[in-house]
Amino acid sequence: MTLEPFRAEIGAVNDLLCAASLLTWDSRTMMPAGGAATRGLQIATLIRAARDRLLGDAMARALDQARRAVEGLPEDHADARAVAQTLAAVAHHARVPAALVEARAALRTQAQAAWTQARETSDYALFAPHLDETVRLARDYADAVGYEAHRYDAMVGLFEPGETARSLADLFAALRAGIAPILDAARGRAPARSDFLARGYAMEGQRAFGLSIAERFGYDLRRGRLDTTVHPFEVSFTREDVRITTRYRPDYLPGSLFGIFHETGHALYEQNVDPAHTRTTLATDLIGLYAVGGTSFGAHESQSRLWENHVARTPTFWANHFPELQAHFPAELADVDADAFYAAVTRAEPGFIRVEADELTYDLHIMLRVELETALMAGDLTVSDLPGAWDETMRRDLDLVVPDARRGVLQDVHWSSGYVGSFPTYTIGNVMAAQLMEAVREDDPGAVAAMERADYAPLADWLRAAVWRHGRRFGRDELLVRATGRALDPAPYLRHLAAKYG
Amino acid sequence: MTLEPFRAEIGAVNDLLCAASLLTWDSRTMMPAGGAATRGLQIATLIRAARDRLLGDAMARALDQARRAVEGLPEDHADARAVAQTLAAVAHHARVPAALVEARAALRTQAQAAWTQARETSDYALFAPHLDETVRLARDYADAVGYEAHRYDAMVGLFEPGETARSLADLFAALRAGIAPILDAARGRAPARSDFLARGYAMEGQRAFGLSIAERFGYDLRRGRLDTTVHPFEVSFTREDVRITTRYRPDYLPGSLFGIFHETGHALYEQNVDPAHTRTTLATDLIGLYAVGGTSFGAHESQSRLWENHVARTPTFWANHFPELQAHFPAELADVDADAFYAAVTRAEPGFIRVEADELTYDLHIMLRVELETALMAGDLTVSDLPGAWDETMRRDLDLVVPDARRGVLQDVHWSSGYVGSFPTYTIGNVMAAQLMEAVREDDPGAVAAMERADYAPLADWLRAAVWRHGRRFGRDELLVRATGRALDPAPYLRHLAAKYG
Repeated sequence: MTLEPFRAEIGAVNDLLCAASLLTWDSRTMMPAGGAATRGLQIATLIRAARDRLLGDAMARALDQARRAVEGLPEDHADARAVAQTLAAVAHHARVPAALVEARAALRTQAQAAWTQARETSDYALFAPHLDETVRLARDYADAVGYEAHRYDAMVGLFEPGETARSLADLFAALRAGIAPILDAARGRAPARSDFLARGYAMEGQRAFGLSIAERFGYDLRRGRLDTTVHPFEVSFTREDVRITTRYRPDYLPGSLFGIFHETGHALYEQNVDPAHTRTTLATDLIGLYAVGGTSFGAHESQSRLWENHVARTPTFWANHFPELQAHFPAELADVDADAFYAAVTRAEPGFIRVEADELTYDLHIMLRVELETALMAGDLTVSDLPGAWDETMRRDLDLVVPDARRGVLQDVHWSSGYVGSFPTYTIGNVMAAQLMEAVREDDPGAVAAMERADYAPLADWLRAAVWRHGRRFGRDELLVRATGRALDPAPYLRHLAAKYG
Repeated sequence: MTLEPFRAEIGAVNDLLCAASLLTWDSRTMMPAGGAATRGLQIATLIRAARDRLLGDAMARALDQARRAVEGLPEDHADARAVAQTLAAVAHHARVPAALVEARAALRTQAQAAWTQARETSDYALFAPHLDETVRLARDYADAVGYEAHRYDAMVGLFEPGETARSLADLFAALRAGIAPILDAARGRAPARSDFLARGYAMEGQRAFGLSIAERFGYDLRRGRLDTTVHPFEVSFTREDVRITTRYRPDYLPGSLFGIFHETGHALYEQNVDPAHTRTTLATDLIGLYAVGGTSFGAHESQSRLWENHVARTPTFWANHFPELQAHFPAELADVDADAFYAAVTRAEPGFIRVEADELTYDLHIMLRVELETALMAGDLTVSDLPGAWDETMRRDLDLVVPDARRGVLQDVHWSSGYVGSFPTYTIGNVMAAQLMEAVREDDPGAVAAMERADYAPLADWLRAAVWRHGRRFGRDELLVRATGRALDPAPYLRHLAAKYG
């Protein structure tokens, strides 16, 4: 028995999904506005073709051969894992009726248009019927896919396999308890000066500095590029072409800089997946139908947060690199030093908007969303009661009065995209990043010392060996146990927050 | 009986082919170099998926319904044509064994790499074995597809349906006889001054002027964009997203300018296809597996040549627009006037390189290639004798001694891409452009008068009605008969050349 037909079929599925990702990248960076309608149809056709291929006869025959070919291999052998993951994905998609897939796709287009308009006018009523339908279809989806304890488990499992409403409740309880005293302490202090971050920074200097740091971190521009977009993201079309995007605000310098560092973290993960995994199951999310080498959304986010917050949002980093930034903006930064700059970019202050939140309050925004979407899935909360619940939770957690739906329940794109269960992965990324960094400190103190000399190669080497190269071969907790000796653990993250903001 | 399933299936085929075109566009404008290998596999998968879908059971069922749905419609009704063309394409692809398709695709990758190296070192021997195989597979392809008189007919028919070795021989004989005396006369004159075209023109000014003219011609940037590439081209992903590319040489100003005008002509054709044809057979080359609204390669080329040579390469055009160009380059063009500029960009002088040839000698380059590839397909010429035959023909037709293979037989990419039979379409484009322009002059003198006022809208209106909007509904000659009263006719083109260069 041979693996060749299986590899060819999965290669084609990966090709279709990489093509879909390129069409998406183009639509968010290059496409003229007129192309939007037909582009949406093209992307939908590619995703559907990938799903059809996964459920097709050729795949079934190839999988049958492949299953026998990997018999006797260790369970965690790359080929054995590829076959097992593919069998699971085929079973998953076979459980979801085609009509439900079509209904969710059709709703997404309408819901996003309605959300865009609702957000602009801050009018929740415009979006509510679509959100209602989104929740209804998510419940149908969960029922089709199956779950043990909670419908939400089926949805969060699409993004973070193994995570459940129960496991998240435990994690969040620990985080809440740990963050509260640090936040209280931070509230007592006067915020650092940050006026100079708004001094009309030219895009060219932002781009040049950001990209020079990305390369210093190890981002390979022979297999990557940086473009401008509205909502920044990283995307890959195999490890040989991994692109990042950002946006430049003249009146908020850290936006593009930390944005680039963040996306670079994602990009390093993708660029460093073992080349042997290219165009295989181990570089394809066959459940989410997305060409990606990272093993879960949370694991992916851990890499972006690690480079953004543990490497770049540190006094050491700015002691090393602030002079370079100053050279790009000699007039604007003439009266600022590295310490003042670091203080400005670590300023903690509760706000309404998740994507603008600081490290300390960020997870409270996530917990709010997860709490509410879990209740929606369970039927404990109705869509019409959602805005009230949102505003109440903001008051409870951050002591803020939400002024309007635009700055409240309508701020995120996720629900309008049909994503229910994706929010936890941001916090999982934060937790995992801190856990990995603590392991680096224990395991390879030289890598930490090298960072003090602005040498990031030893850290990248450690992460490549522990995380990146494996692609999707190991699950998130399996990866963490191998790298740190423990499954996901909030303690290192709380220690990190206490040290930085306590 | 309903057309809906048929439309859905063809829509998906068009989506896959548009995606393949976007991946190609990206690979030639944006892609980091490292992405080349996996990108080639992705494009191949998309094309194969389109072919599989065309030959699949769902398409067969949909076509069966559609065939009955269009019964009783006039033969040239859009739906009747779409169904007939799709049936013909399915029959075509069913005749070509999958193994032959794969062999041609695999050869292309190797042959292009070998050709690139052979051209760099001017070493024909490096490319010869691949060309030999290319010819062998083209002969197999022709045998699979079928033909009446000559194997070449099957190949040229892929690009210009209805054209044959016989019809081309007649056309070329007429052109040869007509061009010879004009060329003789031109040879006797001293060439116009053109030194000022090499005065280090900054890219920004070239781009700004070129794009402003493209928009004046009617190119809609809400559904288009201009990028930089090595070998310029136009490409579309439905009429809603039609992109052009060019390259900028500081030492040769007309390169980018006429390049942009040329690609704009292609783009106008695609942007103005009837919206009702979007994602249908009438905007898809189902034989060539390429998403395109133009009805043949020759018809497409007629639009690029028309705008490049009949609109922009005229004294009127430069009388109107030279001051704008001068405003972009006040120092470089201080001592030049519109007449001198026009004379420089219409300078006729025999040379070795097709893509650098002037209007008067261009077709002789084409006839040489068609003569040789016809002989290769017939077995009257061997690949090893090809360079000698090339050089001999260049001496006969243009009185030039080819210095090396790089400037001779190795100069074009076509054969290395597996294209045999595509060259005639360039000359057909020239002939058709002149024929259409003569019809405009007779039919709508106001459109010609408007061009003297730099108003190109009436010309565009005429072309939209006569050519563009129909997409692939009518064949090339059918289009010409409707628009000009005659099938393809070399007389207007010879009159045009005589008037311009005689």
